[in-house]
Amino acid sequence: MLNILKDHIEKFAQISDEEFEEIKKFFDTKDVAKKENLLEEGQICKHHYFVLKGLLRKFFINEKGTEQTTEFAIETWWLTDNFAYENKIPSDFYIQAVEQSTILYISQDNQEKLLTAFPIMERYFRFVYQRAYAAAQRRIQYLFTFSKEAFYFQAVRNHPEFVQRVPQYLIASYLGFTPEYLSEIRKRGIS
Amino acid sequence: MLNILKDHIEKFAQISDEEFEEIKKFFDTKDVAKKENLLEEGQICKHHYFVLKGLLRKFFINEKGTEQTTEFAIETWWLTDNFAYENKIPSDFYIQAVEQSTILYISQDNQEKLLTAFPIMERYFRFVYQRAYAAAQRRIQYLFTFSKEAFYFQAVRNHPEFVQRVPQYLIASYLGFTPEYLSEIRKRGIS
Repeated sequence: MLNILKDHIEKFAQISDEEFEEIKKFFDTKDVAKKENLLEEGQICKHHYFVLKGLLRKFFINEKGTEQTTEFAIETWWLTDNFAYENKIPSDFYIQAVEQSTILYISQDNQEKLLTAFPIMERYFRFVYQRAYAAAQRRIQYLFTFSKEAFYFQAVRNHPEFVQRVPQYLIASYLGFTPEYLSEIRKRGIS
Repeated sequence: MLNILKDHIEKFAQISDEEFEEIKKFFDTKDVAKKENLLEEGQICKHHYFVLKGLLRKFFINEKGTEQTTEFAIETWWLTDNFAYENKIPSDFYIQAVEQSTILYISQDNQEKLLTAFPIMERYFRFVYQRAYAAAQRRIQYLFTFSKEAFYFQAVRNHPEFVQRVPQYLIASYLGFTPEYLSEIRKRGIS
């Protein structure tokens, strides 16, 4: 299953089988039950997560006391609270398994050691962060551009499998809807 | 003035004077007049910009026909439409000088050549993207968390010089206010 990481690295950087045998020692594997939290608000954000199988989400509790989902991560996606992770400070976020999942995780110290020992991994993580940053810029654009309703129907068009896989109440949480409102606009969309 | 880039690289990666003499050949310098556009909606996004002196902003024209500012860049900040830049496609954005500015710029092809010729620059750009991504994640969090009013007063507290330097109508554009509304909440904040 670790080959999922190797294949992902090789999309961006050349590594040999021998190098990967060393690289993988910097990571640990974990099976996570559905709804299990990997990180909770107030905890030091110690790990960067890579999804081998399953689905994670990141959320915070907003001022109204409801869960605001800000990101999802499926297979080959990295996820953490990057600011808290880099600065080793408590997080405002929860990271939770949406499905039963298998993940790799690495600590900030180990990630730094990995990058020092294998500078080729700088190229890999440069691509990982570059693409994640570009996606976050687009999310910010969409948060300003579209009505929430239009944003939902755009997601249905562009990522149909993803929208089918994620429970509707979490899609609602990502968009900042109530589940009732999402149900209502879905009915309107169909009719 | 190119030493501003050298100093910034050296915050994250070790390079020699000889290496920097080669590295700087991948960049061009440009003086930009106040309100001059470096990129316009519909144009292929060809360049990544690094501010040596001055202030840039990135904005798009929203459905109401008004300018929605999504990012600013002051000295030592990088700015582009990253998705359009990486994919060499037309941009939805404008990049405009807010003050008379001096910038460095690099094309996507040259950035790739630079990274191949000087792998140490992978480490530099890994840090640049990592931090920019973390900042974008926080922006998304704030867009959901705070009322726009609270977001403004938080910016005043955390980045007073920045708020003083940027014209009020652009702060309004960043927050999604009308300039009149910003003026109103500033009066309320003072009283």
